Amino acid sequence: MHLRKADELIEEIPTLLKKIEVEKPLIHHLTNFVVMNDTANLTLTYKALPVMAHAEEEVEEMVGLAGALVLNPGTLTREWITSMIKAGKKANELKVPVVLDPVGAGATRFRTESNLKIMQEVSVSVLRGNPGELAALVGQESVVKGVESVGEVSGLDSMVLNTSKFTGAVVAATGKRDIVSDGHKIVVIDNGHNWMRTITGTGCMATTAIASFCSVTRDYFLATIAGLVTLEIAAEIAAYQALGPQSFKTALFDTLFNLKPNDIIDKSKVFYLEG
Amino acid sequence: MHLRKADELIEEIPTLLKKIEVEKPLIHHLTNFVVMNDTANLTLTYKALPVMAHAEEEVEEMVGLAGALVLNPGTLTREWITSMIKAGKKANELKVPVVLDPVGAGATRFRTESNLKIMQEVSVSVLRGNPGELAALVGQESVVKGVESVGEVSGLDSMVLNTSKFTGAVVAATGKRDIVSDGHKIVVIDNGHNWMRTITGTGCMATTAIASFCSVTRDYFLATIAGLVTLEIAAEIAAYQALGPQSFKTALFDTLFNLKPNDIIDKSKVFYLEG
Amino acid sequence: MHLRKADELIEEIPTLLKKIEVEKPLIHHLTNFVVMNDTANLTLTYKALPVMAHAEEEVEEMVGLAGALVLNPGTLTREWITSMIKAGKKANELKVPVVLDPVGAGATRFRTESNLKIMQEVSVSVLRGNPGELAALVGQESVVKGVESVGEVSGLDSMVLNTSKFTGAVVAATGKRDIVSDGHKIVVIDNGHNWMRTITGTGCMATTAIASFCSVTRDYFLATIAGLVTLEIAAEIAAYQALGPQSFKTALFDTLFNLKPNDIIDKSKVFYLEG
Repeated sequence: MHLRKADELIEEIPTLLKKIEVEKPLIHHLTNFVVMNDTANLTLTYKALPVMAHAEEEVEEMVGLAGALVLNPGTLTREWITSMIKAGKKANELKVPVVLDPVGAGATRFRTESNLKIMQEVSVSVLRGNPGELAALVGQESVVKGVESVGEVSGLDSMVLNTSKFTGAVVAATGKRDIVSDGHKIVVIDNGHNWMRTITGTGCMATTAIASFCSVTRDYFLATIAGLVTLEIAAEIAAYQALGPQSFKTALFDTLFNLKPNDIIDKSKVFYLEG
Repeated sequence: MHLRKADELIEEIPTLLKKIEVEKPLIHHLTNFVVMNDTANLTLTYKALPVMAHAEEEVEEMVGLAGALVLNPGTLTREWITSMIKAGKKANELKVPVVLDPVGAGATRFRTESNLKIMQEVSVSVLRGNPGELAALVGQESVVKGVESVGEVSGLDSMVLNTSKFTGAVVAATGKRDIVSDGHKIVVIDNGHNWMRTITGTGCMATTAIASFCSVTRDYFLATIAGLVTLEIAAEIAAYQALGPQSFKTALFDTLFNLKPNDIIDKSKVFYLEG
Repeated sequence: MHLRKADELIEEIPTLLKKIEVEKPLIHHLTNFVVMNDTANLTLTYKALPVMAHAEEEVEEMVGLAGALVLNPGTLTREWITSMIKAGKKANELKVPVVLDPVGAGATRFRTESNLKIMQEVSVSVLRGNPGELAALVGQESVVKGVESVGEVSGLDSMVLNTSKFTGAVVAATGKRDIVSDGHKIVVIDNGHNWMRTITGTGCMATTAIASFCSVTRDYFLATIAGLVTLEIAAEIAAYQALGPQSFKTALFDTLFNLKPNDIIDKSKVFYLEG
């Protein structure tokens, strides 16, 4: 196995970022209460438009206006799962991409089963989670403590590859190092910063970032990489201004808003894993 | 039609702001999950006291303690609408002013109808929305993308005037330029800053600001102008410190907390529209 | 009555703080929508792990992973109270400490009764509220305006002592001056800063801080003092950087993240009330 720099992917990202700004797609979220404000603001920082709407009566109509749908059952109840499935099915019908963030899968049976149910009923375009959450969904050994993945997940590269093959979704396992696969190719992303672990919701933010890119290209593998790499490069730049978690968070949003094509081209560490 | 500076209105605002600080009215919110933290903090920044309470069992008792009631169905479900109507009716009975923010009306039928239902059952003191939301409520053509008004609403001045006449509420259409009417007079506000569009919830914050002023005067037309103009002048001052959306947001709250009478008198751009 | 400096308690706090960082306990919250993001971030700032989970189907399993359970019915509904009791009973069975924050008790009958119901069904390790909320729970005269205690509660020291004796919980009445009792000893804490009153949720944050310490020691009296004193000393240091409420909030989290043993030893104002 060796790594080859994925420059041709990176070069496309500034154009997509510009496209979001021009088209201002609506990103429809059914997401958790903890991060709603942050992910709405992140959507605006990517210059897309957020809407948070979860009532069974309106999710189908709302997703009809959307460029992408985020399903993030981080503070799930039965009613929310029902609405998520309803929104997801309509999104499938309308060919609106669906990005699923299986928050805390593996921590409780209810979470694991609810996420599996969503995946049975809805065709998911991108599945992004931490290694423990993804492992739980495919029945592999893992430890999920609340919403955090603890310890190592063995054979992560092939697990991501196989989950993508099995589900048909682009799959991203994020952490210190991200692994992304479309079932054929595997990409490794080495960007990001430790400060990201000191604030809540950076995983949820990554999901929103991915959804923003999915709304402007049908290449969801590229969109997933673009979402992760822009957020993580912004984190690297923001780290220079961080005195603690909250000044980091402020700098993260500010940096992302001002992110330049050259920041992306110069700082990205994205590699094909080939063997 | 011509514009005449509304200096006599502006001169009353510092006194009202001081009155909020002295009386510390309780502003009872039934509002959306996205902005709850921001609008609670904004209420404190205006030196009023916030409470967020939506259970059917307690809304009537809670509104009995309140100086104003905010109804903001931004993440509505049926249960919340029921509680909003219950709280609103009790507020009417007790003569507590009710400020309605019809978030996303026009985006889905459920939103439009829920807001109309609130307006049928509750006498609303102030109705604040973006042009698209207000147009949707009166059955006029508009495009609402999620919770954003897109494109122009034609004849906005007379639409606001007529909506106010028809509903009996003070009506405010906010955007780059705000139009406020009490059914007789029309006022135009030219304050504010583009940074406000880069963070979520500035509309909801405007509603909370208006409610804070409604709790200390029966002149809801003045209260509406006061809420909008103080928030927007603070935004103008905060813009000097903004490096991006989140440093803007921090500066917005800090500036508002420290807002001086002279800031309001010197920077307000409030005009009667006469003709 | 006289005050005696409680140095031997303070000296233990840095060790506990380090223990949280090393053990990374999960702090399971059933808390209100207003502060969820802040208290999740605060938990991370204490270097513990937060999880917010309230579905009846999963609270028992989730609390089995937790080092402490926070029950904060600040935006309560019937369903949430049911889940809180379920989580609390399981916590009792598993000997996971339970910290209750009776937000707004006294403001409405529904709040007072819901909190009393929790206390009847669940054995609470620590009860933290403002003087008005605690007075309401024990049937003493008080004024609670929304979620704020207004005016003086007479005989606060003995009320806290007696509430602790009666309930078996460590009881903390927080405000300008905090009173903490385990039913035998009474401690007075004179730390904190006025800026804390300008942002929402500092009470909820104090509860989360206490829960974080409860997860690493069985001495809940010490844990309560440790939670309050670390948060309040951080507030004192952060005040030097505050230009307004939001820059204060940013500095509060940043300072807490970087809090040094000497900050705690040098700045604590914790006294036994004896006599």
